[in-house]
Amino acid sequence: MANQPVRLDYGFCAAERLGAAAGLDDAALARLQAEFERAMTVVSAQKAAGKLGFMDLPFMGQDGLAPILAEAKRLGEFCENFVVLGIGGSALGATAVDMALGGCLRHAFARPAGAMRLFVADNSDPRMFAALLDNLDPRATAFNVVSKSGSTAETMSQYLAARQMLEQKLGREEALRRLVFTTDPQAGYLRKIIAAGDDIAVLSVPPNVGGRYSVLSAVGLLPLACAGHDVAALLEGAAQMAGRCQSPVLGENPALMLAALAVESFRRGRNIFVMMPYASDLLGLAQWFGQLWAESLGKAKALDGAEVHVGQTPVAAVGATDQHSQLQLYMEGPQDKLICFLTIDDYGRDLTIPALHPELTGLSYLGGQTMSRLIKAEATATAAALARQGRPSLSLRLPRIDANVIGQVFYLLELATVAAGAALGIDPLDQPGVELGKQLTYGLMGRQGFEDQAAQVRAMDAGDRFLI
Amino acid sequence: MANQPVRLDYGFCAAERLGAAAGLDDAALARLQAEFERAMTVVSAQKAAGKLGFMDLPFMGQDGLAPILAEAKRLGEFCENFVVLGIGGSALGATAVDMALGGCLRHAFARPAGAMRLFVADNSDPRMFAALLDNLDPRATAFNVVSKSGSTAETMSQYLAARQMLEQKLGREEALRRLVFTTDPQAGYLRKIIAAGDDIAVLSVPPNVGGRYSVLSAVGLLPLACAGHDVAALLEGAAQMAGRCQSPVLGENPALMLAALAVESFRRGRNIFVMMPYASDLLGLAQWFGQLWAESLGKAKALDGAEVHVGQTPVAAVGATDQHSQLQLYMEGPQDKLICFLTIDDYGRDLTIPALHPELTGLSYLGGQTMSRLIKAEATATAAALARQGRPSLSLRLPRIDANVIGQVFYLLELATVAAGAALGIDPLDQPGVELGKQLTYGLMGRQGFEDQAAQVRAMDAGDRFLI
Repeated sequence: MANQPVRLDYGFCAAERLGAAAGLDDAALARLQAEFERAMTVVSAQKAAGKLGFMDLPFMGQDGLAPILAEAKRLGEFCENFVVLGIGGSALGATAVDMALGGCLRHAFARPAGAMRLFVADNSDPRMFAALLDNLDPRATAFNVVSKSGSTAETMSQYLAARQMLEQKLGREEALRRLVFTTDPQAGYLRKIIAAGDDIAVLSVPPNVGGRYSVLSAVGLLPLACAGHDVAALLEGAAQMAGRCQSPVLGENPALMLAALAVESFRRGRNIFVMMPYASDLLGLAQWFGQLWAESLGKAKALDGAEVHVGQTPVAAVGATDQHSQLQLYMEGPQDKLICFLTIDDYGRDLTIPALHPELTGLSYLGGQTMSRLIKAEATATAAALARQGRPSLSLRLPRIDANVIGQVFYLLELATVAAGAALGIDPLDQPGVELGKQLTYGLMGRQGFEDQAAQVRAMDAGDRFLI
Repeated sequence: MANQPVRLDYGFCAAERLGAAAGLDDAALARLQAEFERAMTVVSAQKAAGKLGFMDLPFMGQDGLAPILAEAKRLGEFCENFVVLGIGGSALGATAVDMALGGCLRHAFARPAGAMRLFVADNSDPRMFAALLDNLDPRATAFNVVSKSGSTAETMSQYLAARQMLEQKLGREEALRRLVFTTDPQAGYLRKIIAAGDDIAVLSVPPNVGGRYSVLSAVGLLPLACAGHDVAALLEGAAQMAGRCQSPVLGENPALMLAALAVESFRRGRNIFVMMPYASDLLGLAQWFGQLWAESLGKAKALDGAEVHVGQTPVAAVGATDQHSQLQLYMEGPQDKLICFLTIDDYGRDLTIPALHPELTGLSYLGGQTMSRLIKAEATATAAALARQGRPSLSLRLPRIDANVIGQVFYLLELATVAAGAALGIDPLDQPGVELGKQLTYGLMGRQGFEDQAAQVRAMDAGDRFLI
C-alpha cells in the first residue's frame, strides 16, 4: 500500500478566501514565517539538547520494538483482555488508536482473532472500575500499570485493587504473570516493587519522553500491539511525517504552519481550538490532541518569568454529528475559535443509500448516492459556510484511517505543539499547575506530611451557606 | 428510596471565598437578582404562550407514558438491539441516560435480562454505520427513526439503508415491524411515508418541544424504556426539580442561580463553560448539556435585531481523568472559563484499596481507603486549588446516579438555559445558523433547486494552492 501523505489545507485562514477581517494576508504570513523560523530553531536546539525524546521514537527500529512485541506475544498466549491502568498521557494515545482502527463500537462486537480486547481504565472512579473487575475473567486478563513515577494516585489505587483481586483468585504467581509495568528505566515506585522481589514484566519509557508525547513509546505501543494493531506502521507514518517537517518554511512544513495559524489566532482573540474529525472513530484522536494542546500550552509563566496566562482551550467535536450540536454556536457565536477539521478521503467502508421513496423530493436526492459522499459533502459545506461568515478553519486531509496515517497525524500535532510553545515563549514540556491539586488531595487522603494542605481545604469549606 | 435533591453549591463564585477579583460580591448578586427576576418573568410568559413544551413533559403522566411503554413492550418481545437513527437532540439524551445508568462500558458486557442493547447511530459515517449493520442480527434489531421533519439527511440516509437491509433479509412485513418513527404528530416526511400505506409504528413529539429539549419526550423515553431504564423515575426527578425551580429568588432556585452565574461570567470574559462530572459514566450527560447550551445560546442576533454574537462554548470534561489532561490549562491559562463540577455523594459501587506495599510511603497512604474517597477528595481538592488561583467554579451535588437524579439534572439545566437566553435577550429555541451549511450540502449532493449553492461552494475551492 502506498503511504499517501496527510495534507494540511489552510486556505480558509487566508485573507484571499476568508476576507481581510479574519484572514491572514501576505504581510501577516511573512511575519509568521520569520517568527516560526526562529521557533523551529528553538525546537532544533531542544532536540539537540535531548529534551524532545518523542522525535526519536519513530526511529526506534527493531531494537526498540522487539521487547514490546515479545511482551505482547507472551500475554497473547493466555489473555483475551488487556486493561491499561493509566491516566492522561498514559491512556489517551492507546484509546485514540484503538478507537480509530477498531472502531468506536469495538467493545460491542467480537474482536478479530488473535487480538485482545483493550480497556483503558483512566479514572479513579469506583463505578467504572468495579464494573470492569466484575465483568472480566481474571484468568484471561492482563493489567498494564503505566506510570513513570509509580506514584499516580488514580493509577496506583487501581493497581493495588487489581493485584489483590488477581492474587485472591489466582494465587501470587499467576497474578504477577498478568501484570506489566510501563515506567521509568530506573526510578520510581514500580521499579522499587520489582527490585523488592516481585517477578513482574516491565517496559521502559525514555526519561525524555513526557506522558503526553508518549503514545509512540511502550506506553502506547504495548496496548496497541496487544489489541492487534500494526504498531510498526504507526512508527513508519510518524517517521514519514518527520521527514516532511524538517523545513523552516511554513509553506513546506504542515506542523509549523498549523502551529503558526493557531498561535496567531490565539493572539487575535481566538482562545478556543476545535479539533473536528469527520469520523466517529476519530473522537479519541481529538481527545488525545486535547491533552497535548492544553497541558503543553496552557501556562501561567513564560520562560523569562513573565506572567502570560496563555493557552487555547481545545474542544473535541465530531462531524457530521456536532453540526447538530455545536455548529450553531460556531456559525453565530463570538469570533473566538479556530476550527481544525480532519477529513477522510477513503472511509474504507461505504453504503449506498437506496432510492426508496422517489415521490418525496426532500429525500429522493439521497437515493443512489453513497453515505461517504454525504459526509464529505457535509464537511466541505460546513467549512464553506463558516468561511462565508468570516470564520477561519483549516483541514487536515487524511487519505484513509489506518495506522500509518494516524502515525503521521501524531507526529504532526506533537511537533506543532512544541513549535507553538517555542513561539509563545513557554515550556511545552512541564505541567506545574497540577501540583497544588495533588497536594491538596494528599492532604484530604491523610498522607503524612500533608496535614497543612488538609487544613487549608477544610478552611475553605463554607458548609451550607452557598448551597441551594 | 427517598428522592434526595440535587444541590447547587456556588460558594466558589462568591467574592467572600474567591476574592474580589473574580468573585461576585453582594452588590453584584443583587444586580443579578433583579435581572434574573425579569428573566424568570420572560420564561413564565413563554411558558404561558405554549412555547416551552419541555416544562410540561415531566407531568405527562400515565397517558403520556402508556404508548411509549407499549411500544417498548412490543419490541422487547422479539428484539435484543435498539438502534436510534437520530442526530443532535434526537440522540444525545438517550446516550446520556444509557451511559449514566448502564455505565460507560455497557457495550462491552452483557446487558441485564429483559433490557435491549441501545445503540445511538448519530452520524452519517459509513465506517460506523456499516460496522453496526454488519454486526447486529437484523432479526433481533429495531431501528428508531427520530426526526421531527423527516428530512434530516444523516438520519434519513441511515433509515433508507437500514430499511433496505431489513427488507432484503427479512421481507417487507418483518422489516416494517422492526421500524419505529418518532416524529411530529402531523407534519413531515415520516408521516407521509405512513400515510402512503407503510404500516410502521409511530410516536409523536409535541410540536412545542425542540430537539435539544426533547429527552423527556418519546425521543428519549422510548430508547430508554427499551434499554430497561426507569423512565417514570426520570420524569419524577424532573417534576421534583420543577417544583424547586418556581422561585424568582436566586438563592432559592438552583436553575436560575446557575443561569445567572453563567451569564455574568460570560460578560466578564469567560467565554467557556466547562461541565466536569466526577464520574466516567456522566460524560454523556456533559455532552448532552453541550448541545443544549451551545445551540440555545450561541446566537448572532438579539430578539431586537441587534448583532450580539453571544454564547459560551461548552466543554465536556471528566474528573478525575481530565485533571491529567485539562487541569494544567484550567489552573494557569487565560481567565476564560467557568467550571461546573458534578459531584457524586454515593457512587453505588465501591472498592477498598488494599495496603500491599506498606514500605512505600508514596503509596501506603492509599491502603485501607476506598476508591470513592479518593475521587471525592480529588473533586474537592481541584475546586479548592482553582479557587486558590482566583478561578471560579460551581458544583452540582448529585446524591447518587440514578434515573430520578438524572431527571432532576435535565430539568435544572434546561430551565437554566432558557433563563440564560432570556437574560441575554436572544431566542434560546431556534438555530438559524445551521441553515446555510444544510443548503450548501444539498447543493453538493445535487438536490434539485440547490444548483446555486453547489456553484457557490465550488467557487470557493482553491484547489492545491493552500495545500501542504
